[in-house]
Amino acid sequence: MLAAVIHGARDVRAEERPDPVLRTPHDAVVRVVAACVCGSDLWPYRGVTPTREPHPIGHELVGVVEELGAEVTSAQVGDFVILPFSLSCGRCQSCRAGFPAACDVVTFFGSTDRDGHPVDGAQGQKVRIPLAQHSLFPVGLSEQEVEARGLVPHLLALADVMSTGMHAAVSAGVREGDVVAVVGDGAVGLSGVIAAKLLGAARIVAMSRHQDRTALARAFGATDVVAERGPDAPAAIRALLDGNLADAALECVGTQESMAQALAVVRGGGRIGFVGVPNGGPELPVRELFSRNLTVGGGMASARRYMAELLPHVLSGAIEPGRVFDLTLPLAEIAEAYAAMDERRATKVLVRP
Amino acid sequence: MLAAVIHGARDVRAEERPDPVLRTPHDAVVRVVAACVCGSDLWPYRGVTPTREPHPIGHELVGVVEELGAEVTSAQVGDFVILPFSLSCGRCQSCRAGFPAACDVVTFFGSTDRDGHPVDGAQGQKVRIPLAQHSLFPVGLSEQEVEARGLVPHLLALADVMSTGMHAAVSAGVREGDVVAVVGDGAVGLSGVIAAKLLGAARIVAMSRHQDRTALARAFGATDVVAERGPDAPAAIRALLDGNLADAALECVGTQESMAQALAVVRGGGRIGFVGVPNGGPELPVRELFSRNLTVGGGMASARRYMAELLPHVLSGAIEPGRVFDLTLPLAEIAEAYAAMDERRATKVLVRP
Repeated sequence: MLAAVIHGARDVRAEERPDPVLRTPHDAVVRVVAACVCGSDLWPYRGVTPTREPHPIGHELVGVVEELGAEVTSAQVGDFVILPFSLSCGRCQSCRAGFPAACDVVTFFGSTDRDGHPVDGAQGQKVRIPLAQHSLFPVGLSEQEVEARGLVPHLLALADVMSTGMHAAVSAGVREGDVVAVVGDGAVGLSGVIAAKLLGAARIVAMSRHQDRTALARAFGATDVVAERGPDAPAAIRALLDGNLADAALECVGTQESMAQALAVVRGGGRIGFVGVPNGGPELPVRELFSRNLTVGGGMASARRYMAELLPHVLSGAIEPGRVFDLTLPLAEIAEAYAAMDERRATKVLVRP
Repeated sequence: MLAAVIHGARDVRAEERPDPVLRTPHDAVVRVVAACVCGSDLWPYRGVTPTREPHPIGHELVGVVEELGAEVTSAQVGDFVILPFSLSCGRCQSCRAGFPAACDVVTFFGSTDRDGHPVDGAQGQKVRIPLAQHSLFPVGLSEQEVEARGLVPHLLALADVMSTGMHAAVSAGVREGDVVAVVGDGAVGLSGVIAAKLLGAARIVAMSRHQDRTALARAFGATDVVAERGPDAPAAIRALLDGNLADAALECVGTQESMAQALAVVRGGGRIGFVGVPNGGPELPVRELFSRNLTVGGGMASARRYMAELLPHVLSGAIEPGRVFDLTLPLAEIAEAYAAMDERRATKVLVRP
């Protein structure tokens, strides 16, 4: 089969790889219908995080179940499924508490499972799914229905970006009537706008400088746009809000600057939901949190949980998170998919195997 | 009048100071009935934070209103009042949102007010109270009633430690049925035990090594005690909880070690309420928060808000937070009050002017 492999900085190739097979009774094999490139894939692509040896890449996919291990009863062969970007057991304390992203045996695409077997990347034609019992999420529609209704991008968004935007808003405790600032105008930030609206935010300020992304943010529910950064950002927010700051902020980037901006634009007692993968591990200024009574929560989204909550909104057409995809390419052109996102020619690229 | 002044490390003296007078129409003058020494007073006492020049000290008091500025209508002369350890306007966005500790013009005892006037310390015979309209909190009883019912220590505890323990539990989102670990067995940690019980925690693990404090923790509602620290602490918690970790932790110390311990004893998706004054500014490990989905909130408690919520529980006798005071001294012996706490001969010292 064909699958994407990262070899090093700016070197992602579509290569022939062995077809996946069941390795344990807890596995499934899924034929990929669509995958995509994530903002976090750009860290190794840009060499910010090093690639020590070539490995398959990609962690977002929708597809059709082809094979099931004997212990997997949560789906049927032929089911159209979404996979969360992290795989989980569903049984440990963190899973039971609603945080499968912090599962005791959390397993990632392109990595190794708890039994030591390699796990395929999602940017490929097929993927072996460990921990399939809890990880497979059938949407209740056939592949034909999904394609006919044009739902592929919207369902694929639930695998990561939309669930991650939701986690930002939930972690920031967004509630009816809140003023919410969204830091980051990538696919996750745009999804955060959708999530803040779903949770009842009265006013949503998209912090963005890019006109095309601003337009989509407004379509998703942003009521205001602020282009200012650094010390000018809180001043711009105050100018918008009669001297006030936001009740909550969604940090959807993952740099020290973006976190500082999120902290700066909320009032005393404000809440920050952070979901940007911390790049280089910026630490949080605990004295600022202390004196300004800020609460910071978030992290890796438990997509398995949020996709279940969000599916009805996608099926009803109430939300269209797949609008973040602005380019579709065949898997064979995976190198161009990465380059387009790296050079900001695309917000998010959908890949068809 | 007599008042405590800190001159440097291990040098706190009871000295004659000028009697306070009203300086603005927003002030009050309060005669102190009781004050006390705070764990955070020990940072300058120990020289961990330097004392650049001598200044009055102490930030917890109950007393009787002696004089009121023309603009202060929230209390009457003769009222028995509690003062929160930070003074606030009640009008800015943070105050209105329920976070007066993060008030735009937050003012501290022993410091300077927004008009540049010096503010007395609470460890004295009288105190000028700036921002009196919002800061004075009359309890609705006369001084004679308060003394006759033995309520002085319990009401004084609301000025800081009990409100701070409550802020830890509220910030950790403690709810019915939670397992809560309390890191720190000082007066704030012990108050955190009371707060966790008030909020419905099913199991409260006091992390303590001191037998007298352990006994009080159990009297306040702790169901378990864990003496282990460092990497042994989560193992001890798992041994208690059938392999599980706590849902929430209250960080009531303020060191890097205590924060690390609080982070280590909660499950994935766990919540940490932190109220220990960060000593030396340990930063929070954002990657650990990210991968384990931890939420950290808290900071300086909005005592003005919590004292109102907690007063009925004190008046009904449901909680007795004043039991954290295990030594009472006259103001003239303030040096011994600090020494007794520094040397851990006392958990918390009540001072009578």
